[in-house]
Amino acid sequence: MHPFAKKPREAIAALGEEGLIRAIGRWLGSANPAAPLGVGDDCAVLPRRTGRGLITVDSVIYGRHFDDSVSPRAVGAKLLKRNLSDLAAMGGRPVAAVLALIVDGRVSVRWMEDFHRGLAASARHYGVPLVGGDVSEVDSGLAASLTLLGAPGGARLLTRTGARTGDWIFVTGVLGGSLRSGHHHRFRPRLSEGLWLARRREVRAMMDVSDGLAKDLRALTPPGTRPALTTDALPRRRGCDLRATLTDGEDYELVFAVARSADRRAFVRAWRRAFPRTRLSWIGYFAPADRVPPDAVPLEDFHGYEHLR
Amino acid sequence: MHPFAKKPREAIAALGEEGLIRAIGRWLGSANPAAPLGVGDDCAVLPRRTGRGLITVDSVIYGRHFDDSVSPRAVGAKLLKRNLSDLAAMGGRPVAAVLALIVDGRVSVRWMEDFHRGLAASARHYGVPLVGGDVSEVDSGLAASLTLLGAPGGARLLTRTGARTGDWIFVTGVLGGSLRSGHHHRFRPRLSEGLWLARRREVRAMMDVSDGLAKDLRALTPPGTRPALTTDALPRRRGCDLRATLTDGEDYELVFAVARSADRRAFVRAWRRAFPRTRLSWIGYFAPADRVPPDAVPLEDFHGYEHLR
Repeated sequence: MHPFAKKPREAIAALGEEGLIRAIGRWLGSANPAAPLGVGDDCAVLPRRTGRGLITVDSVIYGRHFDDSVSPRAVGAKLLKRNLSDLAAMGGRPVAAVLALIVDGRVSVRWMEDFHRGLAASARHYGVPLVGGDVSEVDSGLAASLTLLGAPGGARLLTRTGARTGDWIFVTGVLGGSLRSGHHHRFRPRLSEGLWLARRREVRAMMDVSDGLAKDLRALTPPGTRPALTTDALPRRRGCDLRATLTDGEDYELVFAVARSADRRAFVRAWRRAFPRTRLSWIGYFAPADRVPPDAVPLEDFHGYEHLR
Repeated sequence: MHPFAKKPREAIAALGEEGLIRAIGRWLGSANPAAPLGVGDDCAVLPRRTGRGLITVDSVIYGRHFDDSVSPRAVGAKLLKRNLSDLAAMGGRPVAAVLALIVDGRVSVRWMEDFHRGLAASARHYGVPLVGGDVSEVDSGLAASLTLLGAPGGARLLTRTGARTGDWIFVTGVLGGSLRSGHHHRFRPRLSEGLWLARRREVRAMMDVSDGLAKDLRALTPPGTRPALTTDALPRRRGCDLRATLTDGEDYELVFAVARSADRRAFVRAWRRAFPRTRLSWIGYFAPADRVPPDAVPLEDFHGYEHLR
């Protein structure tokens, strides 16, 4: 069968990313176990007999995730760090990684060398052995997928589900302007912060912000509620308006829910002692869907980065 | 930096696949631990603290590993089975898999559905939960990489190293003509055979045949020796000449070394009892490099499938 659709409405682009992922879940059926074992969180949790390992995979593609303006060293580092950010979002620590390269034979040796040196430097920095890989050839293009294996950093893993009505919403760092500022390849994955947060009982759910807060926050929102965010509380990168802050994506920050019964001020004080240089912002709470304050950020007016659109 | 070389001699194609893989090993330096932990066998073995897991990654690419003549169901099954064959080659059993899709938005929903249904059917058949994945978009093309996690099936893992001078060389099934016959997507990975072989003390080293026996056998050959193969002993697929048998590739059979001190006939009898329907051929032995019989197959005249050439 020819893989490409004759009519646009028969193509996967017509489904959009979320529609495609839902469809894939249906097509896989029982071969895809329910989350957290299966698709639907930052990492998948491996079957228990193998010791609760974590696994995640992410790619970088020429023309999408990097262009000629980004050094190949930074591309290599970014590939690993994107995956580390997914691990951080569950409170995991890295164990090992494998690389799948899909390359045009015309890629320069110089570019490949710098890419691998950047990947290796980052792997040494974060203590991730690169244990294997595969090189496959394509007629044109350049893509690299990295599969990262991890393990829980402590007794508890944080998933995207678990937040309840009234829980406080916090986010690390600043949001928006990632491409313009170079943050998209210079960021530091929030591994230590993720480990610390997974150990705090009052933290109920967590994920990383990669497609923009407006889109990503949907996955953290408990049924029957809506995020009630305070415009002024959103940590914006210099020069970013509200839209950029909420939708630019590639922030690689952590967003998480803290139990409303917790002592919020004590939690923030403990954070400041642990991470004096990592900004933490209390940006709102999960309001009952029929009691969202009128001045809350109208998230439905914003869309995060939508793949396949 | 622009990734593509201006002059052909500056492109990775000039290195060839083996040259590129050696270069990658140098560039990664200490971030790539020595085999069996690192690159250089069918699977990588994970750091011991995680329980000696196995991991392997392999891709299928439109225009390279499949074309319009192969059903998308067969493509999905093939992707998993290629990886299972790598696991079989070490005596491993599968644990879980993750999928990275790199797709053009114009791929048809129908193709994607059939691909995933084929992958899922194969995953259920071999007991491999598909626990996660990632979808990334490219301007044109279609590729899928699958990372497979495994575990040793028994107390022992078989690697490519360990054969000694004089050891017998055996191969399963028949070789050659894989594309023409459809074997390249209809094959059954030799998982049970691999498990059985890893439990037999007289088996010293093993790998799967994917790029053609002439090329792959080099990795099994101990230093100071040469494979002395008997032309008539090579198991050929119907219609294959010697060149096709040795170089077509995509055989997904197991080739392994048996200690010369072993009782070869007793070994073959035990095999026949365990696998009455899987052909086993004794094809030669590792001769001292200066004592190769003059009528041995002149392997240096044949080249297996060379990627990036």
